[in-house]
Amino acid sequence: MDRENEDTCQKVLKFLSQNVSWLEASGPGDDIAICSRVRLARNISGEPFPIAANLKQRDYIRSSIEDAIRHSCCMGQDVSQFQMDDLTELQRQIFFERRLVSAELIGQPQGAALIVCSDETHGVMINEEDHLRIQALAPGLQLEKAWKLADGLDNCFAEYLPYAYDPQLGYLTCCPTNVGTGMRASVMLHLPGLLLSGQVSSAIQGIRTLGLTVRGIYGEGTENHGSLFQISNQSTLGESEKMIIDRLHSVISQLIVHEKNSRAMLLEHNKYKLLNHVGRSYGKLRHSYIIDFEEALNALSALRIGVDMHMFTSLNVALVNDLLVKISPAHLQLTSGDELDEEGLGVKRAELLRETLKKMESETR
Amino acid sequence: MDRENEDTCQKVLKFLSQNVSWLEASGPGDDIAICSRVRLARNISGEPFPIAANLKQRDYIRSSIEDAIRHSCCMGQDVSQFQMDDLTELQRQIFFERRLVSAELIGQPQGAALIVCSDETHGVMINEEDHLRIQALAPGLQLEKAWKLADGLDNCFAEYLPYAYDPQLGYLTCCPTNVGTGMRASVMLHLPGLLLSGQVSSAIQGIRTLGLTVRGIYGEGTENHGSLFQISNQSTLGESEKMIIDRLHSVISQLIVHEKNSRAMLLEHNKYKLLNHVGRSYGKLRHSYIIDFEEALNALSALRIGVDMHMFTSLNVALVNDLLVKISPAHLQLTSGDELDEEGLGVKRAELLRETLKKMESETR
Repeated sequence: MDRENEDTCQKVLKFLSQNVSWLEASGPGDDIAICSRVRLARNISGEPFPIAANLKQRDYIRSSIEDAIRHSCCMGQDVSQFQMDDLTELQRQIFFERRLVSAELIGQPQGAALIVCSDETHGVMINEEDHLRIQALAPGLQLEKAWKLADGLDNCFAEYLPYAYDPQLGYLTCCPTNVGTGMRASVMLHLPGLLLSGQVSSAIQGIRTLGLTVRGIYGEGTENHGSLFQISNQSTLGESEKMIIDRLHSVISQLIVHEKNSRAMLLEHNKYKLLNHVGRSYGKLRHSYIIDFEEALNALSALRIGVDMHMFTSLNVALVNDLLVKISPAHLQLTSGDELDEEGLGVKRAELLRETLKKMESETR
Repeated sequence: MDRENEDTCQKVLKFLSQNVSWLEASGPGDDIAICSRVRLARNISGEPFPIAANLKQRDYIRSSIEDAIRHSCCMGQDVSQFQMDDLTELQRQIFFERRLVSAELIGQPQGAALIVCSDETHGVMINEEDHLRIQALAPGLQLEKAWKLADGLDNCFAEYLPYAYDPQLGYLTCCPTNVGTGMRASVMLHLPGLLLSGQVSSAIQGIRTLGLTVRGIYGEGTENHGSLFQISNQSTLGESEKMIIDRLHSVISQLIVHEKNSRAMLLEHNKYKLLNHVGRSYGKLRHSYIIDFEEALNALSALRIGVDMHMFTSLNVALVNDLLVKISPAHLQLTSGDELDEEGLGVKRAELLRETLKKMESETR
């Protein structure tokens, strides 16, 4: 490893050693709503969109935006900056697993960058689909808080960056579906009650007719992974940001009530089935020697219900959230220091889960 | 409950509270051979076979045999006697689950009886398929020991009972397949190594070509239940008891070596798969809230391998053997005192397993 790579590596490790505040489950409704997120798509007037820009242009755009952000001081002192083409494939994957960068950003790393604050609550991606994507996160159901954070950054950056803006249409973006506010607000929800009681399909259908999008947390087709769902606004045109946020908040509040009712019903009518689901999931995580990602995700998801039902004195939601990230392939590979194949990952993942839960058991004994 | 029923109930409970010596896993090779069993079929000369006898005749046969056994004193003082028609359906099931009576005996309880010694190592069934069936058990691979025990009882009874015997054919029995020695010798084996490595089918086929019978422990079609197999002699004619026992012993000794090799191979080449199989089984037994019989049986079977591999400080083979009996439906029903449906049994079974393993964990902590 040469000097420069070593520096990058140290920087990545230092960054990863810090606490992720949105995983700490300290927001309202955090037993069901894991986190709220708002992202704003912005572009620089007169420059080609990243997809149409050559490498020189992409580099120019990146350095202009980086300079502007640095001068603005909007993001505070405690920020880290990562140029995607400086990172190894594994390091890029780590950032992806922490939901700090998108598949698009790491798919085209040349000229792409991430600037992020230490607690990972806000950051920007440069040269993703748009020149600039501002992101803000808050634990639990706190769309308004995430929105205010993103909006504050946006207003601040606007003084240093000439945004592409049309008085009639609003912010101009690479993809027409983002034109207008350029805003996508989303909440990650844990809905095992609805899933176990067979009501999740009708709930999703209902939400879609309200013009909202429902996806699994790992994108399309992963709807049942860990009973985790991401709900977001579809349209960005014809409504103010406030209206979009309010509507989303109201739908999600209702969904949370619906999920709580399902859990109560399950507990009343299928108590042993529910206990069994949670208990066996714990047994699997505590005693496996090989476990794949999806299976671990589903079992951790069941543990969240168990924590909610006060079945475990040794566990809390923050620990489960933390494990949800740490069982991901790149994170496991980073901690083990080796390149691992599928089986090796399964063994490492099982070891991490077994040891963590064992430690928690002995601490609360 | 009237007085007589209450007496029977007390007698059954007292009997069940005693230790079952063949479950204590104190015989040679008991990590693989669970127990050895010999049974002898005998009939009284001049009386119709039970299937052809009317109730009066069946009662007469029973009381004649009971009297003869009592006078002979061959079974010692510490015996219990149960008339099948005095027992409830549940009590008969209990004896069946402990392998003291056969499905045939409890299928036609009128005039049928069981006389058994307190440690359950030897006993007789009266009016099963034949008038008298002498049974003897020994833990591990000890066919010779079981045979000597049964033979001793047989010789002793012969002085008091006029056996139906033909100098040419040997002992006459209801079913022609038992004519001759009237002996069936069998060993219950635990073969998870062969099963997991996909070698069990060819092993069974090999054994069958040697003229031996292989069955699951719960009869035909239960071959994979708990990786438990019962191997016995097929023919009773043309060979002495000693020859049959010696041949069976030799085949089973080879099978035990084969099983040990499979386990060693699995441990060498598929260590994590084997650990995973055992670990997950433990997790399932330790943390389920509903578990059905077959699933529990298979998981307990895996635990036996774990004990053999020294994975658990808190477990031993005798405990696992004991649980193998106690998870059976009638045993669960007896301890709970209620009549239980399928779900109720699953809940009780899970509770028994969870609590037992938890207790063992805390005792060895």
